[in-house]
Amino acid sequence: MGLVAIDGDDTLWHNERGMREAEEAFFTLMKRYAPVDSVSATLLETERANLALYGYGVKGFSLSLIETALAISNGKAAKEVPDILAMGRRLLSSPVELIEGVDEGLSALADSGQRLMLLTKGDLHDQLRKLDSSGLRRHFNRVEIVAEKDIATYRSIAKRSGIVPDELVMIGNSIRSDVRPVLELGGVSVHVPYELNWAHETVAEPLVSSRYHRASTFEQATQIVAALRR
Amino acid sequence: MGLVAIDGDDTLWHNERGMREAEEAFFTLMKRYAPVDSVSATLLETERANLALYGYGVKGFSLSLIETALAISNGKAAKEVPDILAMGRRLLSSPVELIEGVDEGLSALADSGQRLMLLTKGDLHDQLRKLDSSGLRRHFNRVEIVAEKDIATYRSIAKRSGIVPDELVMIGNSIRSDVRPVLELGGVSVHVPYELNWAHETVAEPLVSSRYHRASTFEQATQIVAALRR
Repeated sequence: MGLVAIDGDDTLWHNERGMREAEEAFFTLMKRYAPVDSVSATLLETERANLALYGYGVKGFSLSLIETALAISNGKAAKEVPDILAMGRRLLSSPVELIEGVDEGLSALADSGQRLMLLTKGDLHDQLRKLDSSGLRRHFNRVEIVAEKDIATYRSIAKRSGIVPDELVMIGNSIRSDVRPVLELGGVSVHVPYELNWAHETVAEPLVSSRYHRASTFEQATQIVAALRR
Repeated sequence: MGLVAIDGDDTLWHNERGMREAEEAFFTLMKRYAPVDSVSATLLETERANLALYGYGVKGFSLSLIETALAISNGKAAKEVPDILAMGRRLLSSPVELIEGVDEGLSALADSGQRLMLLTKGDLHDQLRKLDSSGLRRHFNRVEIVAEKDIATYRSIAKRSGIVPDELVMIGNSIRSDVRPVLELGGVSVHVPYELNWAHETVAEPLVSSRYHRASTFEQATQIVAALRR
Protein backbone atom coordinates (compact mmCIF):
# COMPACT_ATOMS: atom_id res chain seq x y z
CA MET A 1 0.00 0.00 0.00
CA GLY A 2 3.01 2.21 -0.22
CA LEU A 3 4.13 5.06 1.92
CA VAL A 4 3.25 8.74 1.89
CA ALA A 5 6.13 10.85 3.18
CA ILE A 6 5.42 14.47 4.03
CA ASP A 7 7.75 17.40 4.53
CA GLY A 8 7.45 19.61 7.64
CA ASP A 9 8.76 23.17 7.20
CA ASP A 10 6.51 25.20 4.88
CA THR A 11 4.45 22.13 4.01
CA LEU A 12 2.79 21.39 7.37
CA TRP A 13 3.80 24.49 9.31
CA HIS A 14 5.12 27.95 8.55
CA ASN A 15 8.88 28.29 8.75
CA GLU A 16 10.32 30.55 6.08
CA ARG A 17 7.98 33.37 7.15
CA GLY A 18 9.53 33.44 10.64
CA MET A 19 13.03 33.26 9.14
CA ARG A 20 12.24 36.20 6.86
CA GLU A 21 10.91 38.21 9.79
CA ALA A 22 14.10 37.48 11.69
CA GLU A 23 16.14 38.57 8.68
CA GLU A 24 14.15 41.81 8.42
CA ALA A 25 14.73 42.47 12.13
CA PHE A 26 18.43 41.78 11.56
CA PHE A 27 18.61 44.20 8.61
CA THR A 28 16.94 46.88 10.74
CA LEU A 29 19.43 46.23 13.53
CA MET A 30 22.34 46.53 11.07
CA LYS A 31 21.06 49.61 9.23
CA ARG A 32 23.38 51.90 11.10
CA TYR A 33 26.39 49.92 9.85
CA ALA A 34 25.52 49.09 6.25
CA PRO A 35 22.68 49.33 3.74
CA VAL A 36 20.16 46.49 3.64
CA ASP A 37 21.28 45.24 0.22
CA SER A 38 24.85 44.82 1.28
CA VAL A 39 23.92 43.16 4.61
CA SER A 40 21.57 40.85 2.78
CA ALA A 41 24.21 39.85 0.23
CA THR A 42 26.84 39.25 2.94
CA LEU A 43 24.39 37.17 4.95
CA LEU A 44 23.48 34.92 2.02
CA GLU A 45 27.15 34.49 1.17
CA THR A 46 28.00 33.66 4.80
CA GLU A 47 25.13 31.17 5.07
CA ARG A 48 26.18 29.43 1.87
CA ALA A 49 29.80 29.28 2.97
CA ASN A 50 28.75 27.79 6.31
CA LEU A 51 26.16 25.33 5.01
CA ALA A 52 28.54 22.41 4.57
CA LEU A 53 29.76 22.90 8.13
CA TYR A 54 26.58 23.91 9.97
CA GLY A 55 23.87 22.15 7.99
CA TYR A 56 20.32 23.48 8.15
CA GLY A 57 18.60 25.07 11.10
CA VAL A 58 18.24 28.03 13.39
CA LYS A 59 21.46 27.57 15.36
CA GLY A 60 23.60 27.71 12.22
CA PHE A 61 21.52 30.66 11.06
CA SER A 62 22.20 32.46 14.36
CA LEU A 63 25.94 31.83 14.05
CA SER A 64 25.87 33.17 10.48
CA LEU A 65 23.97 36.28 11.62
CA ILE A 66 26.60 36.96 14.29
CA GLU A 67 29.44 36.42 11.82
CA THR A 68 27.78 38.74 9.29
CA ALA A 69 27.09 41.44 11.88
CA LEU A 70 30.69 41.54 13.04
CA ALA A 71 32.05 41.42 9.49
CA ILE A 72 29.98 44.26 8.06
CA SER A 73 30.49 46.51 11.11
CA ASN A 74 34.18 45.79 11.66
CA GLY A 75 33.33 44.37 15.06
CA LYS A 76 31.24 47.34 16.14
CA ALA A 77 27.98 45.37 16.08
CA ALA A 78 29.14 43.49 19.18
CA LYS A 79 26.54 45.30 21.23
CA GLU A 80 23.83 43.91 18.97
CA VAL A 81 24.97 40.30 19.45
CA PRO A 82 22.76 39.70 22.51
CA ASP A 83 19.79 40.87 20.40
CA ILE A 84 20.80 38.46 17.65
CA LEU A 85 21.08 35.61 20.17
CA ALA A 86 17.61 36.55 21.42
CA MET A 87 16.24 36.46 17.86
CA GLY A 88 17.55 32.93 17.46
CA ARG A 89 16.07 31.91 20.79
CA ARG A 90 12.73 33.35 19.75
CA LEU A 91 12.77 31.29 16.55
CA LEU A 92 13.56 28.18 18.59
CA SER A 93 10.75 28.74 21.05
CA SER A 94 7.94 30.35 19.10
CA PRO A 95 4.80 28.25 18.76
CA VAL A 96 4.29 26.36 15.54
CA GLU A 97 1.67 27.78 13.20
CA LEU A 98 0.05 25.15 11.04
CA ILE A 99 -0.62 25.74 7.39
CA GLU A 100 -4.33 25.79 6.56
CA GLY A 101 -6.05 22.45 6.12
CA VAL A 102 -3.11 20.37 7.31
CA ASP A 103 -4.71 18.74 10.33
CA GLU A 104 -7.86 17.82 8.37
CA GLY A 105 -5.84 16.59 5.38
CA LEU A 106 -3.60 14.37 7.51
CA SER A 107 -6.62 13.02 9.38
CA ALA A 108 -8.32 12.09 6.13
CA LEU A 109 -5.22 10.29 4.85
CA ALA A 110 -4.62 8.49 8.13
CA ASP A 111 -8.32 7.49 8.37
CA SER A 112 -8.09 5.93 4.92
CA GLY A 113 -5.45 3.60 6.37
CA GLN A 114 -2.56 5.29 4.59
CA ARG A 115 0.89 4.83 6.17
CA LEU A 116 2.25 8.32 6.82
CA MET A 117 5.79 9.43 7.51
CA LEU A 118 7.07 12.84 8.48
CA LEU A 119 10.26 13.39 6.51
CA THR A 120 11.98 16.64 7.20
CA LYS A 121 15.49 17.98 7.25
CA GLY A 122 17.07 20.48 9.54
CA ASP A 123 17.96 20.58 13.17
CA LEU A 124 16.92 17.40 14.97
CA HIS A 125 16.14 19.04 18.29
CA ASP A 126 14.17 21.91 16.80
CA GLN A 127 12.21 19.76 14.34
CA LEU A 128 11.10 17.41 17.11
CA ARG A 129 10.05 20.40 19.18
CA LYS A 130 8.01 21.70 16.26
CA LEU A 131 6.40 18.31 15.71
CA ASP A 132 5.45 18.06 19.38
CA SER A 133 4.16 21.60 19.39
CA SER A 134 2.18 21.01 16.18
CA GLY A 135 -0.12 18.38 17.64
CA LEU A 136 0.34 16.38 14.42
CA ARG A 137 2.44 13.53 15.76
CA ARG A 138 -0.55 11.22 16.19
CA HIS A 139 -1.06 11.12 12.42
CA PHE A 140 2.38 9.68 11.67
CA ASN A 141 3.49 6.07 11.70
CA ARG A 142 7.05 7.21 11.45
CA VAL A 143 9.17 10.31 11.80
CA GLU A 144 12.56 10.82 10.18
CA ILE A 145 14.65 13.92 10.41
CA VAL A 146 17.48 13.73 7.94
CA ALA A 147 20.52 15.84 7.09
CA GLU A 148 19.71 16.03 3.39
CA LYS A 149 16.79 14.87 1.27
CA ASP A 150 18.59 13.49 -1.74
CA ILE A 151 18.10 10.44 -3.89
CA ALA A 152 20.11 8.24 -1.48
CA THR A 153 17.85 9.27 1.40
CA TYR A 154 14.69 8.40 -0.53
CA ARG A 155 16.19 5.12 -1.74
CA SER A 156 17.04 4.13 1.82
CA ILE A 157 13.55 5.01 3.05
CA ALA A 158 11.89 2.97 0.31
CA LYS A 159 14.18 0.04 1.07
CA ARG A 160 13.60 0.14 4.82
CA SER A 161 9.85 0.45 4.24
CA GLY A 162 9.89 -2.61 2.00
CA ILE A 163 8.43 -0.79 -0.99
CA VAL A 164 9.56 -0.17 -4.55
CA PRO A 165 10.17 3.46 -5.57
CA ASP A 166 6.87 3.99 -7.37
CA GLU A 167 5.01 3.14 -4.15
CA LEU A 168 6.67 6.13 -2.48
CA VAL A 169 4.73 9.38 -2.56
CA MET A 170 6.32 12.58 -1.28
CA ILE A 171 4.30 15.70 -0.44
CA GLY A 172 6.33 18.87 -0.02
CA ASN A 173 7.03 22.43 -1.04
CA SER A 174 10.64 22.22 -2.19
CA ILE A 175 11.51 21.34 -5.77
CA ARG A 176 15.08 20.69 -4.70
CA SER A 177 14.35 18.43 -1.73
CA ASP A 178 10.83 17.07 -2.16
CA VAL A 179 10.38 16.83 -5.93
CA ARG A 180 13.59 16.37 -7.94
CA PRO A 181 15.21 13.45 -6.06
CA VAL A 182 11.87 11.63 -5.71
CA LEU A 183 11.18 11.80 -9.45
CA GLU A 184 14.76 10.75 -10.20
CA LEU A 185 14.32 7.69 -8.01
CA GLY A 186 11.06 6.79 -9.73
CA GLY A 187 8.70 7.89 -6.97
CA VAL A 188 5.64 10.10 -7.05
CA SER A 189 5.88 13.74 -6.05
CA VAL A 190 3.02 15.97 -4.98
CA HIS A 191 4.36 19.49 -4.93
CA VAL A 192 2.58 22.13 -2.84
CA PRO A 193 4.44 25.40 -3.43
CA TYR A 194 4.78 27.73 -0.48
CA GLU A 195 4.37 31.48 -0.74
CA LEU A 196 8.05 32.05 0.05
CA ASN A 197 11.15 30.10 -0.85
CA TRP A 198 14.60 30.35 0.60
CA ALA A 199 17.06 31.34 -2.15
CA HIS A 200 19.02 28.12 -1.55
CA GLU A 201 15.95 25.96 -2.28
CA THR A 202 15.00 27.78 -5.48
CA VAL A 203 15.72 25.80 -8.64
CA ALA A 204 14.13 25.62 -12.07
CA GLU A 205 10.92 23.61 -12.37
CA PRO A 206 11.42 19.91 -13.04
CA LEU A 207 10.79 18.21 -16.34
CA VAL A 208 7.25 17.14 -17.06
CA SER A 209 6.62 13.72 -15.56
CA SER A 210 3.49 11.65 -15.12
CA ARG A 211 4.67 11.11 -11.55
CA TYR A 212 4.78 14.84 -10.84
CA HIS A 213 1.68 16.50 -9.43
CA ARG A 214 1.19 20.05 -8.36
CA ALA A 215 -1.35 21.12 -5.76
CA SER A 216 -2.24 24.62 -4.69
CA THR A 217 -3.26 23.68 -1.15
CA PHE A 218 -2.41 20.88 1.26
CA GLU A 219 -6.00 19.68 1.08
CA GLN A 220 -5.70 19.36 -2.69
CA ALA A 221 -2.44 17.44 -2.23
CA THR A 222 -4.18 14.91 -0.01
CA GLN A 223 -6.98 14.56 -2.62
CA ILE A 224 -4.39 13.84 -5.29
CA VAL A 225 -2.83 11.19 -3.03
CA ALA A 226 -6.25 9.64 -2.33
CA ALA A 227 -6.97 9.50 -6.07
CA LEU A 228 -3.55 7.87 -6.74
CA ARG A 229 -4.37 5.17 -4.26
CA ARG A 230 -7.64 4.18 -5.92
CA MET B 1 19.31 -12.61 17.18
CA GLY B 2 18.72 -9.26 18.78
CA LEU B 3 20.33 -5.93 18.11
CA VAL B 4 23.54 -4.36 19.38
CA ALA B 5 23.26 -0.58 19.49
CA ILE B 6 26.45 1.40 19.96
CA ASP B 7 27.00 4.99 21.01
CA GLY B 8 29.27 7.29 18.97
CA ASP B 9 30.83 10.16 20.93
CA ASP B 10 33.43 8.90 23.42
CA THR B 11 32.53 5.28 22.70
CA LEU B 12 33.70 4.95 19.10
CA TRP B 13 35.53 8.25 18.67
CA HIS B 14 36.92 10.96 20.89
CA ASN B 15 34.60 13.90 21.47
CA GLU B 16 34.77 15.26 25.01
CA ARG B 17 38.54 15.70 24.69
CA GLY B 18 38.10 18.16 21.81
CA MET B 19 35.32 19.94 23.70
CA ARG B 20 37.57 20.28 26.76
CA GLU B 21 40.39 21.64 24.63
CA ALA B 22 38.00 24.19 23.15
CA GLU B 23 36.88 25.14 26.65
CA GLU B 24 40.47 25.59 27.78
CA ALA B 25 41.17 27.79 24.75
CA PHE B 26 38.05 29.78 25.62
CA PHE B 27 39.14 30.24 29.24
CA THR B 28 42.53 31.47 28.04
CA LEU B 29 40.82 33.90 25.68
CA MET B 30 38.62 35.20 28.52
CA LYS B 31 41.36 35.43 31.16
CA ARG B 32 41.70 39.16 30.71
CA TYR B 33 38.03 39.64 31.60
CA ALA B 34 37.43 37.16 34.41
CA PRO B 35 39.14 34.34 36.31
CA VAL B 36 38.83 30.82 34.90
CA ASP B 37 36.62 29.57 37.75
CA SER B 38 34.06 32.25 37.19
CA VAL B 39 34.08 31.85 33.40
CA SER B 40 33.75 28.11 33.78
CA ALA B 41 30.81 28.43 36.18
CA THR B 42 29.04 30.94 33.92
CA LEU B 43 29.58 28.72 30.89
CA LEU B 44 28.13 25.63 32.56
CA GLU B 45 25.16 27.66 33.79
CA THR B 46 24.60 29.12 30.31
CA GLU B 47 24.86 25.70 28.65
CA ARG B 48 22.39 24.20 31.09
CA ALA B 49 19.96 27.09 30.62
CA ASN B 50 20.19 26.71 26.84
CA LEU B 51 20.02 22.92 26.67
CA ALA B 52 16.23 22.70 26.36
CA LEU B 53 16.35 25.20 23.50
CA TYR B 54 19.55 24.24 21.69
CA GLY B 55 19.83 20.52 22.37
CA TYR B 56 23.25 18.87 22.13
CA GLY B 57 26.03 19.73 19.77
CA VAL B 58 28.76 22.10 18.73
CA LYS B 59 26.54 24.86 17.29
CA GLY B 60 24.65 25.25 20.57
CA PHE B 61 27.99 25.12 22.40
CA SER B 62 29.34 27.92 20.18
CA LEU B 63 26.26 30.06 20.85
CA SER B 64 26.66 29.47 24.60
CA LEU B 65 30.35 30.42 24.42
CA ILE B 66 29.48 33.70 22.69
CA GLU B 67 26.73 34.45 25.20
CA THR B 68 29.08 33.69 28.10
CA ALA B 69 31.90 35.81 26.65
CA LEU B 70 29.68 38.85 26.23
CA ALA B 71 28.07 38.38 29.65
CA ILE B 72 31.27 38.09 31.68
CA SER B 73 32.99 40.96 29.85
CA ASN B 74 30.05 43.34 29.68
CA GLY B 75 30.21 43.16 25.92
CA LYS B 76 33.92 43.89 25.71
CA ALA B 77 34.74 40.38 24.48
CA ALA B 78 33.14 41.25 21.13
CA LYS B 79 36.54 41.29 19.52
CA GLU B 80 37.06 37.67 20.60
CA VAL B 81 33.80 36.50 18.98
CA PRO B 82 35.42 35.74 15.60
CA ASP B 83 37.93 33.55 17.46
CA ILE B 84 35.08 31.78 19.21
CA LEU B 85 33.29 31.22 15.90
CA ALA B 86 36.54 29.80 14.53
CA MET B 87 36.85 27.44 17.52
CA GLY B 88 33.37 26.08 16.75
CA ARG B 89 34.24 25.70 13.09
CA ARG B 90 37.37 23.82 14.02
CA LEU B 91 35.37 21.39 16.16
CA LEU B 92 32.96 20.87 13.26
CA SER B 93 35.70 20.15 10.76
CA SER B 94 38.45 18.38 12.68
CA PRO B 95 39.07 14.78 11.66
CA VAL B 96 37.54 12.07 13.80
CA GLU B 97 39.96 10.19 16.02
CA LEU B 98 38.86 6.65 16.70
CA ILE B 99 39.12 5.14 20.15
CA GLU B 100 41.56 2.24 20.28
CA GLY B 101 40.32 -1.14 19.15
CA VAL B 102 37.05 0.14 17.77
CA ASP B 103 37.49 -0.80 14.13
CA GLU B 104 38.66 -4.32 15.04
CA GLY B 105 35.91 -4.78 17.64
CA LEU B 106 33.16 -3.71 15.24
CA SER B 107 34.60 -5.93 12.52
CA ALA B 108 34.56 -8.93 14.83
CA LEU B 109 30.95 -8.30 15.85
CA ALA B 110 29.82 -7.71 12.28
CA ASP B 111 31.69 -10.82 11.08
CA SER B 112 29.86 -12.92 13.65
CA GLY B 113 26.63 -11.89 11.90
CA GLN B 114 25.55 -9.53 14.65
CA ARG B 115 23.11 -6.76 13.61
CA LEU B 116 24.75 -3.46 14.56
CA MET B 117 23.22 -0.03 14.94
CA LEU B 118 24.90 3.28 15.57
CA LEU B 119 22.77 5.12 18.11
CA THR B 120 23.99 8.54 19.00
CA LYS B 121 22.54 11.83 20.07
CA GLY B 122 23.58 15.32 19.18
CA ASP B 123 23.64 17.37 16.07
CA LEU B 124 22.42 15.41 13.05
CA HIS B 125 24.66 17.09 10.51
CA ASP B 126 27.79 16.86 12.63
CA GLN B 127 27.23 13.26 13.72
CA LEU B 128 26.78 12.12 10.12
CA ARG B 129 29.96 13.95 9.20
CA LYS B 130 31.79 12.18 12.01
CA LEU B 131 30.41 8.81 10.95
CA ASP B 132 31.52 9.39 7.36
CA SER B 133 34.91 10.60 8.47
CA SER B 134 35.32 7.62 10.84
CA GLY B 135 35.28 4.98 8.12
CA LEU B 136 33.03 2.89 10.37
CA ARG B 137 29.79 3.19 8.44
CA ARG B 138 30.28 -0.16 6.67
CA HIS B 139 29.92 -2.00 9.99
CA PHE B 140 26.42 -0.71 10.70
CA ASN B 141 23.12 -2.09 9.47
CA ARG B 142 21.43 1.02 10.75
CA VAL B 143 22.21 4.52 11.94
CA GLU B 144 19.97 6.60 14.19
CA ILE B 145 20.77 10.02 15.51
CA VAL B 146 18.28 10.96 18.16
CA ALA B 147 17.54 14.04 20.22
CA GLU B 148 17.62 12.19 23.54
CA LYS B 149 18.45 8.62 24.54
CA ASP B 150 15.74 7.94 27.06
CA ILE B 151 13.57 4.94 27.79
CA ALA B 152 11.03 5.96 25.12
CA THR B 153 13.79 6.08 22.49
CA TYR B 154 15.03 2.58 23.38
CA ARG B 155 11.48 1.22 23.49
CA SER B 156 10.78 2.59 20.03
CA ILE B 157 14.01 1.11 18.64
CA ALA B 158 13.25 -2.33 20.08
CA LYS B 159 9.74 -2.17 18.68
CA ARG B 160 10.83 -1.10 15.20
CA SER B 161 13.52 -3.78 15.20
CA GLY B 162 10.98 -6.44 16.09
CA ILE B 163 12.78 -7.50 19.27
CA VAL B 164 11.86 -7.69 22.93
CA PRO B 165 13.82 -5.46 25.33
CA ASP B 166 16.16 -8.17 26.60
CA GLU B 167 17.37 -8.77 23.05
CA LEU B 168 18.60 -5.18 22.95
CA VAL B 169 22.23 -4.64 23.92
CA MET B 170 23.60 -1.12 24.23
CA ILE B 171 27.33 -0.35 24.31
CA GLY B 172 28.23 3.14 25.47
CA ASN B 173 30.12 5.38 27.86
CA SER B 174 27.31 7.37 29.44
CA ILE B 175 25.49 6.08 32.52
CA ARG B 176 22.76 8.64 31.90
CA SER B 177 22.18 7.90 28.21
CA ASP B 178 23.54 4.43 27.50
CA VAL B 179 23.04 2.54 30.76
CA ARG B 180 20.17 3.76 32.95
CA PRO B 181 17.33 3.88 30.42
CA VAL B 182 18.39 0.56 28.84
CA LEU B 183 18.36 -1.24 32.20
CA GLU B 184 15.03 0.37 33.08
CA LEU B 185 13.52 -0.93 29.86
CA GLY B 186 14.83 -4.44 30.52
CA GLY B 187 17.71 -4.38 28.04
CA VAL B 188 21.37 -5.26 28.43
CA SER B 189 23.93 -2.52 28.95
CA VAL B 190 27.66 -2.81 28.34
CA HIS B 191 29.24 0.25 29.85
CA VAL B 192 32.68 1.38 28.63
CA PRO B 193 33.61 4.40 30.73
CA TYR B 194 35.51 7.18 28.99
CA GLU B 195 38.40 9.04 30.57
CA LEU B 196 36.37 12.27 30.68
CA ASN B 197 32.72 12.94 31.26
CA TRP B 198 30.76 16.09 30.61
CA ALA B 199 29.32 17.37 33.91
CA HIS B 200 25.80 17.06 32.50
CA GLU B 201 26.24 13.34 31.83
CA THR B 202 27.64 12.53 35.25
CA VAL B 203 25.25 10.65 37.50
CA ALA B 204 25.65 8.12 40.28
CA GLU B 205 26.43 4.54 39.24
CA PRO B 206 23.38 2.39 38.55
CA LEU B 207 22.06 -0.30 40.80
CA VAL B 208 23.60 -3.70 40.44
CA SER B 209 21.83 -5.64 37.71
CA SER B 210 22.60 -8.92 36.00
CA ARG B 211 21.99 -7.05 32.75
CA TYR B 212 24.68 -4.47 33.54
CA HIS B 213 28.22 -5.12 32.35
CA ARG B 214 31.26 -2.96 32.64
CA ALA B 215 34.18 -3.10 30.25
CA SER B 216 37.44 -1.23 30.44
CA THR B 217 38.05 -1.18 26.69
CA PHE B 218 35.91 -1.34 23.58
CA GLU B 219 37.50 -4.66 22.69
CA GLN B 220 36.45 -6.06 26.07
CA ALA B 221 32.91 -4.75 25.46
CA THR B 222 32.69 -6.66 22.20
CA GLN B 223 33.95 -9.81 23.94
CA ILE B 224 31.20 -9.43 26.54
CA VAL B 225 28.64 -9.07 23.76
CA ALA B 226 30.02 -12.14 21.96
CA ALA B 227 29.79 -14.16 25.18
CA LEU B 228 26.19 -12.99 25.77
CA ARG B 229 25.21 -14.21 22.35
CA ARG B 230 26.50 -17.74 22.90
